[in-house]
Amino acid sequence: MEISTIFGYIAATSTTVSFIPQVIKTKNTKSISLLMYSVYLVGIIMWLVYGIMLNEAPIIIANIITLMLSGTIFILKIVHG
Amino acid sequence: MEISTIFGYIAATSTTVSFIPQVIKTKNTKSISLLMYSVYLVGIIMWLVYGIMLNEAPIIIANIITLMLSGTIFILKIVHG
Repeated sequence: MEISTIFGYIAATSTTVSFIPQVIKTKNTKSISLLMYSVYLVGIIMWLVYGIMLNEAPIIIANIITLMLSGTIFILKIVHG
Repeated sequence: MEISTIFGYIAATSTTVSFIPQVIKTKNTKSISLLMYSVYLVGIIMWLVYGIMLNEAPIIIANIITLMLSGTIFILKIVHG
């Protein structure tokens, strides 16, 4: 494994793990802007496409997990408003 | 410019732009966990190192801007508690 990949995995783990409490806390989705969250989700999908194009596992894995977590918040927002 | 780089720039712009209203709204930093925010900041720095190692401009630029934005929130948290 290359050193850059190790740094990538540390990065992916840190930003993903720190995102989880935010997901748990976000029971009230009223404070979230639907427009800004849509832009964010498009961004995550673009990072995923970019990671696949570069064939870089840390980018791909981090963005699949973030997409699942933020996708859940997005659905809660759509359902509960 | 490679197609992957264009996707990277769209990704970087989307996730960074959607982060800005969150920074503006975060006047009350009491709701932020210092531990989780520290983990997040370490993650951003690791993504930056990873981007530099891969020599990928979208990763480098996105994480420098995110580091400045989230670094500002972190300092506000330290100062105001």
